[in-house]
Amino acid sequence: MSDLWTVDPREALRAGEEFDLDSLDRASTFGFIGDKAAAETLTAERGKLLSELQERLFANGRAGGKRNVLVIIQGLDTAGKGGIVRYVMGMVDPQGVALRSFGVPTAEERSHHYLWRIKKALPKPGLIGVFDRSQYEDVLVVRVDNLVDQDVWEPRFAEINRWERTLVNGGTTVLKFALMPSYDEQARRLMERIDRPDKRWKYSTGDLGTRSKWDQFQEAYADVFRRTSTEHAPWYVLPADRKWYSRLAITEILTRALIEMELKWPRVRWSPEVQRRRLAKTMSPELYAESAGIVQKSIDASMDVSLEAAELRDAHADDATRESAIAAIESRRAELEADLATTLEDKQALLEEMAPDLAAATAATIPTSADAIAVDEKVKDRAAKKSKKKDDSKMSKKKKKSKK
Amino acid sequence: MSDLWTVDPREALRAGEEFDLDSLDRASTFGFIGDKAAAETLTAERGKLLSELQERLFANGRAGGKRNVLVIIQGLDTAGKGGIVRYVMGMVDPQGVALRSFGVPTAEERSHHYLWRIKKALPKPGLIGVFDRSQYEDVLVVRVDNLVDQDVWEPRFAEINRWERTLVNGGTTVLKFALMPSYDEQARRLMERIDRPDKRWKYSTGDLGTRSKWDQFQEAYADVFRRTSTEHAPWYVLPADRKWYSRLAITEILTRALIEMELKWPRVRWSPEVQRRRLAKTMSPELYAESAGIVQKSIDASMDVSLEAAELRDAHADDATRESAIAAIESRRAELEADLATTLEDKQALLEEMAPDLAAATAATIPTSADAIAVDEKVKDRAAKKSKKKDDSKMSKKKKKSKK
Repeated sequence: MSDLWTVDPREALRAGEEFDLDSLDRASTFGFIGDKAAAETLTAERGKLLSELQERLFANGRAGGKRNVLVIIQGLDTAGKGGIVRYVMGMVDPQGVALRSFGVPTAEERSHHYLWRIKKALPKPGLIGVFDRSQYEDVLVVRVDNLVDQDVWEPRFAEINRWERTLVNGGTTVLKFALMPSYDEQARRLMERIDRPDKRWKYSTGDLGTRSKWDQFQEAYADVFRRTSTEHAPWYVLPADRKWYSRLAITEILTRALIEMELKWPRVRWSPEVQRRRLAKTMSPELYAESAGIVQKSIDASMDVSLEAAELRDAHADDATRESAIAAIESRRAELEADLATTLEDKQALLEEMAPDLAAATAATIPTSADAIAVDEKVKDRAAKKSKKKDDSKMSKKKKKSKK
Repeated sequence: MSDLWTVDPREALRAGEEFDLDSLDRASTFGFIGDKAAAETLTAERGKLLSELQERLFANGRAGGKRNVLVIIQGLDTAGKGGIVRYVMGMVDPQGVALRSFGVPTAEERSHHYLWRIKKALPKPGLIGVFDRSQYEDVLVVRVDNLVDQDVWEPRFAEINRWERTLVNGGTTVLKFALMPSYDEQARRLMERIDRPDKRWKYSTGDLGTRSKWDQFQEAYADVFRRTSTEHAPWYVLPADRKWYSRLAITEILTRALIEMELKWPRVRWSPEVQRRRLAKTMSPELYAESAGIVQKSIDASMDVSLEAAELRDAHADDATRESAIAAIESRRAELEADLATTLEDKQALLEEMAPDLAAATAATIPTSADAIAVDEKVKDRAAKKSKKKDDSKMSKKKKKSKK
């Protein structure tokens, strides 16, 4: 599926100093060669991976890790910000997401520095913070509506860059997404809000006032992209006429960012052997014997995620990157298998202490190292199939090319 | 599908003064006659309805409405509280949900009345607030661990009842859910957390200390149910050995509670005719002509929701209730059709002003009152099919009974 991306969407969509917003085709689907249905399938598939990676981030936060993610979403009315929150962030556990919308500042907020309310809303460690609008309003609407003079808003570009640098140094991954529909598409969406009784609550009579300043807003956005898309906190500018594309692209970029954080399940400070014995004392031997089949599941699940992650990571990687990704999976698998073996041995030993007769009877159903080898084969098999599939699709792409 | 509920789950699961927790079968699926797969399908189906109803609640909050919902989730470790947040609340727009977990009180929280931190976390109008643990910790863990004397915690039952009364009077629908797995099931789940590397972060060595006070906690919960399950804020006590059942039951109860709020899309203070004209001035006639097909969609969608709601509402209703539900749908449909007719006429008139030639060419594609009648037939058709299906299933139930 990820072969439908011909390039890494982070490369395709990232704004640089030379970024030219005027020539952005708002209906394009840069880098993605699938249609709407394929995009929705891929979004849902990535969502599962995103969801597990988010849980790892959350678990690390609980264990004292400092890392987190800040997703900033900017765009004019009807750009689709709400849809990103609903359909992208809606794919992960709500407990792991800290959502914050920034509207017109309150009297209290206005009495402080413009970053005051932003800093107060930063996500805690382990969370994905999502800002629906952000500090960038203070160089966008504030500039277009002349709320402050240029000598006030102009220095903010540098100030925001410096401040985001400190965020990133503190362990936050900052991802900035701008949703950019065309002028005509905005009209279509506003008309729908006026016409449909179930959408009217979203419309405000002020929306047309903002629309009348379209060109000034585009100019202000263009400056934001040129001046605040930094190495540490890049802007991804999304053509947003097709909602399915912007949702897919953000899901994909967020997933890839989480993959690169190389999140592992945190190590615990207690001994599984000791706790297992304490808990077993409160169980009947029959109930305890039942609990042996569970370990396998987690290893299979973790391997699935690792494989998908590797597949993504080496989708457009050179050979060295690919080799190091494979080495990382191999080492992770070895670690998990060692854990599995220890757990199984300990569980069986404990059952023998608790109920020797039951232990003898259930020994056959408790996974053994032979099963571990079977898992090993299964994983290799799957990896081989994936890699074959990929080669096939490369082949067919080549074939198509040579036909042209 | 909702025929799989043989009784309203609110009736089946609600605790009264005589509630006997000891005799609760923690593995039962009270009132539901389907299996796991059917439960998951029904949960997803209800989720869509829940999601639209939540949006209506949110829209009303934006329009100045005061109503909101407070969902309280209680349960011991591994009871499945996190799963409810993730899989039930995860079905609705994250923007409409205000999630709050209450852990061990901080020093600041301890320096205040026990309701202080609770009151601070109440959801704003239009939101569904979700409390993962709540004020009830102050008559549960606080009691079991002897953190205060009985003459301190005992009066809290009445105090909480009075306070919840004021909440309800202020426009909040309060739903309290207690997840009650069995002692053995808790052991299974704790063992899984110890055994699985990807679950270990959820385990705390303190969990076994809490487990050792199982009986005291059950006694404290039993008192909570007997003394704080009020008319205005009832407790629903869920057998929680099967996660699919507790998730379904909470989804169903929450959905039915939202249905009874009779939420309509809020009326707007602006004129669609005026705004449509203002917006049309920024569009080409071709673009404007395109926008006529949209209105129909919303009416179909709204009718779907109304039908599902009615189906739920009269699932176990007497004839009078059923008749009034049907009358409510009929009046709502009439209202929507009037809106549709006005909108279509206005759109066509405006197009004739803007581009008479285009208006003549596209008149055929713009829905007419004949189309409105077609919708009408479709809706009646669907309602008839649903009602037939229901009669059939009643018939077959009767047949089954008579065979016995």
